[in-house]
Amino acid sequence: MNDSMTTPAVILCRPQLGENIGAAARAMNNFGLTDLRLVAPRDPWPNEKAYAMAVTARPILDEAKLYDTLHDALADLNVVYATTARDRGITKEIITPVEAAKRLRKARPGDKTGLLFGNERAGLENDDVSLADCVITIPTAEFASLNLGQAVLLCCYEYFKAEDDTPRARVEHGPMHRKPTREELFQLFEHLEGELTRSGFLFPPDKVGHMTRAIRATVHRAKLTYQEVQTLRGMIVALAKGKHRVVKD
Amino acid sequence: MNDSMTTPAVILCRPQLGENIGAAARAMNNFGLTDLRLVAPRDPWPNEKAYAMAVTARPILDEAKLYDTLHDALADLNVVYATTARDRGITKEIITPVEAAKRLRKARPGDKTGLLFGNERAGLENDDVSLADCVITIPTAEFASLNLGQAVLLCCYEYFKAEDDTPRARVEHGPMHRKPTREELFQLFEHLEGELTRSGFLFPPDKVGHMTRAIRATVHRAKLTYQEVQTLRGMIVALAKGKHRVVKD
Repeated sequence: MNDSMTTPAVILCRPQLGENIGAAARAMNNFGLTDLRLVAPRDPWPNEKAYAMAVTARPILDEAKLYDTLHDALADLNVVYATTARDRGITKEIITPVEAAKRLRKARPGDKTGLLFGNERAGLENDDVSLADCVITIPTAEFASLNLGQAVLLCCYEYFKAEDDTPRARVEHGPMHRKPTREELFQLFEHLEGELTRSGFLFPPDKVGHMTRAIRATVHRAKLTYQEVQTLRGMIVALAKGKHRVVKD
Repeated sequence: MNDSMTTPAVILCRPQLGENIGAAARAMNNFGLTDLRLVAPRDPWPNEKAYAMAVTARPILDEAKLYDTLHDALADLNVVYATTARDRGITKEIITPVEAAKRLRKARPGDKTGLLFGNERAGLENDDVSLADCVITIPTAEFASLNLGQAVLLCCYEYFKAEDDTPRARVEHGPMHRKPTREELFQLFEHLEGELTRSGFLFPPDKVGHMTRAIRATVHRAKLTYQEVQTLRGMIVALAKGKHRVVKD
């Protein structure tokens, strides 16, 4: 994101429940959006239930702007996408939240963007939708209905994710959790296979080669840290000692 | 998804608020998951607030299974991913919901899978996490906290999306909304440019070529349907008539 780009505004058109306004603010906060706009909310504003729901996102509610009409709420924006679940019967482009996020991220520097959401009961009116560039529909299972907070969450999440560089999979290592050297791993093999031979587990001799390779494959697959190799060797010592004790008793 | 694959179970470990159990059920229902498991919920079960929140997902609550211990809730599963926001200090693989969805979709046929969520106050205990294959962490903005319902929603959404084939962008056309033929488009150009010439808009002559090409580019970019071409021609007729009337008066 370059400096001249602002995050999208979230516009809630005639929302009914304070809880959902709070949930929307929380979702925005979780994914780095800040500009909340409320068009003619049903209940008086500021709303106690919205604040209770927002938790750490209260500053977003403090800064939320109130409008009488959707026209005024959208006036300074250059790009607006309207979310809707229903078919409109009007030829309009329908995009997924993923595509919306991609386009919002590609908006021209300086362009102000917005995500428009209808109310809990009926979503956006056709006249509201007619003020937007195109329509976002969130793919769901059949007969599904998303609530307002959920819809805002998914759109904000996709917007964040579009430029998030978190690796899809990673292993976090503490300072003691470096990878073992091959030598350390070979010592583990020697130790384990020695005790398994002494205990009679690696038997009969013509199977030992295959059994050993299978055990080593298991160890490799576990991608042990140095710390874990040491722990495992301690476990082998303890188990082998126990075995000897049983034999002695 | 092949027939022998079941959708992942959602396991809520010691959840506190009925509202969040209901929100989890609704999120599951929106994205096609059905197997909800509750481990030692704080409030008595069944819970009225959960049902109020679940809306159309009440059957999922009716079928939810109750367990005393996490051990029992996980016993029949082959693959379990634990969601957590905090660093555990233990070397464990951390994956995103996108990666989790991909792996869950690739589970061997017949393997039962599960997504494990901690409670509202503290998430999962380290001992709970130690029963899972690896950890899902949802990428968020700094200082963000997802609530339980939001976390379940995002994981279920990614699971659904991993095999959803909704096109990222599409235009839905009604029966009257076929694309115009080139001939119909050329008639529009001729009609529009004719009226613009008569009205004196296309002037001076040395600019007309460029102006005409710019107008045609705008028309192409709008990707008009046949219906819209007809509407536009009606608008041109009406506007041109008005203009003539003003001139006559």
